[in-house]
Amino acid sequence: MQIAIVLFDRFTALDAVGPYETLGRLPDARTVFVAERTGPVRTDTGALAITADRTLDEVPSPDIVVVPGGPGQTPQMENGTLLEWLRTADATSTWTTSVCTGSLLLAAAGLLRGRRATSHWLALDHLRRYGAEPTGERVVTDGKYVTAAGVSSGIDMGLTLLGRIAGDEHAQAVQLLTEYDPQPPYDAGSPRKAPAHLVEEFRSKSRFTLTQTR
Amino acid sequence: MQIAIVLFDRFTALDAVGPYETLGRLPDARTVFVAERTGPVRTDTGALAITADRTLDEVPSPDIVVVPGGPGQTPQMENGTLLEWLRTADATSTWTTSVCTGSLLLAAAGLLRGRRATSHWLALDHLRRYGAEPTGERVVTDGKYVTAAGVSSGIDMGLTLLGRIAGDEHAQAVQLLTEYDPQPPYDAGSPRKAPAHLVEEFRSKSRFTLTQTR
Repeated sequence: MQIAIVLFDRFTALDAVGPYETLGRLPDARTVFVAERTGPVRTDTGALAITADRTLDEVPSPDIVVVPGGPGQTPQMENGTLLEWLRTADATSTWTTSVCTGSLLLAAAGLLRGRRATSHWLALDHLRRYGAEPTGERVVTDGKYVTAAGVSSGIDMGLTLLGRIAGDEHAQAVQLLTEYDPQPPYDAGSPRKAPAHLVEEFRSKSRFTLTQTR
Repeated sequence: MQIAIVLFDRFTALDAVGPYETLGRLPDARTVFVAERTGPVRTDTGALAITADRTLDEVPSPDIVVVPGGPGQTPQMENGTLLEWLRTADATSTWTTSVCTGSLLLAAAGLLRGRRATSHWLALDHLRRYGAEPTGERVVTDGKYVTAAGVSSGIDMGLTLLGRIAGDEHAQAVQLLTEYDPQPPYDAGSPRKAPAHLVEEFRSKSRFTLTQTR
């Protein structure tokens, strides 16, 4: 089963690595990192580069598509090459998935019309303009489309889909081997739980940024 | 503040990316991925490569050292160049940290003698032979040494240390932006919680492997 994880400049590393480390442990998985060009692709901080081993063209029909998000997602919304690849790959994929603002790319490719989907909490409302129905859930499955919330939620998405494909026991084994027994030192991981002034601060910054890039 | 994340062949990606995505969000962080040679370094699955941007020699005195683990840790236990670099870097570091079996490398470098430390649950006992005192906790701080349990625990370690250095509010902001509100679909992330037969299966495989490599 071929899993294609899409890279683009200024993606967020954990968006891609969460599903890689969980879903990528499918018994017969052949995971491949793809981008428009092969070679190192830098993340949003600039401090990390993951190698794209294949071009999009070289991987036209993966079984599973994984699209991460990150600040670099915004310019990709107008990248016809990527959006066209997503539509083509989706035509034959078994599962089409995203983490964080990766769902906005699926939506911009026209793949989430009329579907329930999620995204980073700051980007959730933007799904509507592409005809998707945003939900605040962490992992949303609608047909073959599996979208995850912000950044770290790709781990939960990966395990969920792994269980669905390979069975609960295999997914539990992967959870055990990755020792995924989360014990965050704070309880601030969602806008419902974090200090209200932090949520408000990021919401106002985000409104500004999103307005500017519209 | 310079953060050096050490790479070596067949490291586990999430071990490195968890701290990168959390601790690396320190306000003045300059994170750099280092290895014996620059260029792409492949993970344990072979499907992912992260670029080492600097050689160990080029980064002799980082403020924070982060050592991931993974299957590739075993041959590194006899890599004098890496162990010597760890000792030298540790001489001036503010924090020396590890995720997963990365703690065995710190231990082999002689840095954990008489200290409480943790590691991947399958490797925990091996800390003893280097004079460290293993504990089953997820994140262990002893002086300037912060060790984390298996793979995904580097996220909790990163947030913990981030809070310690930059304050609780900054760490909470990073938790909110990475939407780290874990909702694993199973509760099998530690040997105390996973199905007993899975734990036993991995323990017997591991005894064999570890015996062989002794």
